[in-house]
Amino acid sequence: MTSSEFTRGLLAEGRDTKILLVVVDGLGGLPDPRTGKSELDAARLPHLDALAASGSCGLISPLGPGFTPGSGPAHLALFGYDPWVHQIGRGALSAMGLGLDFRAGDVAARLNFCTVDAQGRVTDRRAGRIPTEKCRELCAKLGAIRIPGVEVAVAAEMEYRAAVVFRGAGLEDEVGDSDPQVTGVPPHVLEARGKASARMVEVANTFLDQARQLLAGEQPANMVLIRGFGRYPVLPQMGEVYGLRSLAVAGYPMYRGVASAVGMETVETDWHLDQELEVLRSHWDGCDFAYLHVKKTDSAGEDGNFELKVKVLEEVDHYVPQMLELKPEVFILTGDHSTPSIMRSHSWHPVPLVLKSPWAMPDGLPGFAERHCRSGSLGLMPSTRVMALALAHARRLEKFGA
Amino acid sequence: MTSSEFTRGLLAEGRDTKILLVVVDGLGGLPDPRTGKSELDAARLPHLDALAASGSCGLISPLGPGFTPGSGPAHLALFGYDPWVHQIGRGALSAMGLGLDFRAGDVAARLNFCTVDAQGRVTDRRAGRIPTEKCRELCAKLGAIRIPGVEVAVAAEMEYRAAVVFRGAGLEDEVGDSDPQVTGVPPHVLEARGKASARMVEVANTFLDQARQLLAGEQPANMVLIRGFGRYPVLPQMGEVYGLRSLAVAGYPMYRGVASAVGMETVETDWHLDQELEVLRSHWDGCDFAYLHVKKTDSAGEDGNFELKVKVLEEVDHYVPQMLELKPEVFILTGDHSTPSIMRSHSWHPVPLVLKSPWAMPDGLPGFAERHCRSGSLGLMPSTRVMALALAHARRLEKFGA
Repeated sequence: MTSSEFTRGLLAEGRDTKILLVVVDGLGGLPDPRTGKSELDAARLPHLDALAASGSCGLISPLGPGFTPGSGPAHLALFGYDPWVHQIGRGALSAMGLGLDFRAGDVAARLNFCTVDAQGRVTDRRAGRIPTEKCRELCAKLGAIRIPGVEVAVAAEMEYRAAVVFRGAGLEDEVGDSDPQVTGVPPHVLEARGKASARMVEVANTFLDQARQLLAGEQPANMVLIRGFGRYPVLPQMGEVYGLRSLAVAGYPMYRGVASAVGMETVETDWHLDQELEVLRSHWDGCDFAYLHVKKTDSAGEDGNFELKVKVLEEVDHYVPQMLELKPEVFILTGDHSTPSIMRSHSWHPVPLVLKSPWAMPDGLPGFAERHCRSGSLGLMPSTRVMALALAHARRLEKFGA
Repeated sequence: MTSSEFTRGLLAEGRDTKILLVVVDGLGGLPDPRTGKSELDAARLPHLDALAASGSCGLISPLGPGFTPGSGPAHLALFGYDPWVHQIGRGALSAMGLGLDFRAGDVAARLNFCTVDAQGRVTDRRAGRIPTEKCRELCAKLGAIRIPGVEVAVAAEMEYRAAVVFRGAGLEDEVGDSDPQVTGVPPHVLEARGKASARMVEVANTFLDQARQLLAGEQPANMVLIRGFGRYPVLPQMGEVYGLRSLAVAGYPMYRGVASAVGMETVETDWHLDQELEVLRSHWDGCDFAYLHVKKTDSAGEDGNFELKVKVLEEVDHYVPQMLELKPEVFILTGDHSTPSIMRSHSWHPVPLVLKSPWAMPDGLPGFAERHCRSGSLGLMPSTRVMALALAHARRLEKFGA
């Protein structure tokens, strides 16, 4: 954890209050220079605007000024874990999200199906974004890989993405990526960053050699890139730290992965909001804390599709009344990080947050957007502080000191 | 550094973006109670006001609430070095700024020429602010000082200020100042704050005895006060930490000293803004990061000259278009600390900052002043965070985690 406040016994257990945390991926944006309006400014958000008036608002920063987080660190921060301290390889998150049998001592990595030319140079790092169905078929093919003394499991994620889990003695995760990040060059030679990882490099090289042979006849996905080696993470569990029975509703596997790593119950679901809400409703009675993930804002931002991001935001707004219908004592809607469409990438900019509860200061802001939230009563704070606010407004944190 | 974020290899090198950091010394002020306006409120600043509308603003704090920094710590903080961790004696900074031969193991200190009466009591701590030329002459005179086993070098700084470097075995810098800070009393007896510094006290006392004899016939500068003992600092270098070729343009030697200590290239120049800008222009192509220092705002504030500080601020504003003409991807104008004219001293008050870049949230503030910047999107943050923001807006920081 960021700090030991929670484990100092501040927690009042046995309450029956509920917390709903809606994470709109890549929520924050920047103004389009032609209009001066950000995605949130441009979107018609009657329900979120009403919350910005009746609830408390602020901005949250996952890693502090200037640092842009990946999805893993950004989510860990929101769940209250210092992302500089608790580093998880993306492969580990993917493996968990895919439901692969992944245990302490195993090492996971991400696979990207890619296209290489006759000289072995990468010509497309995403193999033309092959459909998920094709990815599953190719993963089954890689099931034929045999490495002495090591168990290997491969599973498809979305489109060209997959994950692999290696189980065997002496496997460590200090290994660089083979993904060169650019095209026109061969994949990087795998490099052990620590002596203990030499065995992992040997195993991964065997895996890549056999994969090359198995995929030789395929087009466009005739090779894999491997990256994000990560051991199974050992993290404090939310049930113990916060005393909450926690539920994660996320359509995209990686987010179930990070939720599962901190001890949340995860439910497989499609990533459409109406289906996620359906799952949430059916599991609501059994949990104290639910995390609901909305992916498409981030994808739209990363594609530089300002209008689509606006549209997804309006869709989220449309579902807000259904979320509030569950009557959580604490409702928080925020993002894991910003993804300004004009940047086509994650960014370091702080993320708007709105919190509604009977104990929230009503800020009376004119709307839910970056420019308004910075005047909110919650100020600008680290994302790692959100869980304490959630617990406080749920009356689940005891007074500290007499 | 404040944290190890940078050294964790987050840095994307090889970019061709440029950062210009303009440090207006003692920038922040307080309202004159008669008008209710601070120096920044009172100044006519059309160009800075425009930046406050189109760029991102905030307030920065060098040492946290309540702590007033000297120029050394305030600058170290701006360059990203935790000033509580990296403490450099002011003498060390002066010695470096003056280009004295100053190496690892040496101890430097500042000298102030002063006036003492027949009883040895200090009657003027600045010897009537003797001209720099006179200071040089007196420093040459002190060149006659001989201490067995120790090399001594003295050099003039500005007006009554000079610096001395001692080189010899067993010299440590845990020594108090002789400057009593008030007049009417004798200089303090030098005090070793640690056992290891006894030899340094002995050497410095010998130096002061001989100085007293050599200056006996002078008027008004008939003695020196010694203060700010400091060993040569060993600091992480900006080139390694940030991957930046860095340039310091500062007319006043002390600021070149701190810049040089963190690995910036320094160029000797006059301290007039037009000449500093001339130097900046001629070196611009060869650097990724340039730091430009404006001294006279601080001097005016320390003299309690509100009107002069306003005038210097307006002069800075006049030069802003010339700074922007260099087309830095990131332009930041801020101060190292506040120097409110009504306090006639440095202060702890947070310092306004404006950042302009294509990726900066346009804050739309009505002007560049303390009262507006506190509503800016950058919030109130430690000065040590400025470099991360600069690198982020220059697209020089990689995403952290997947």
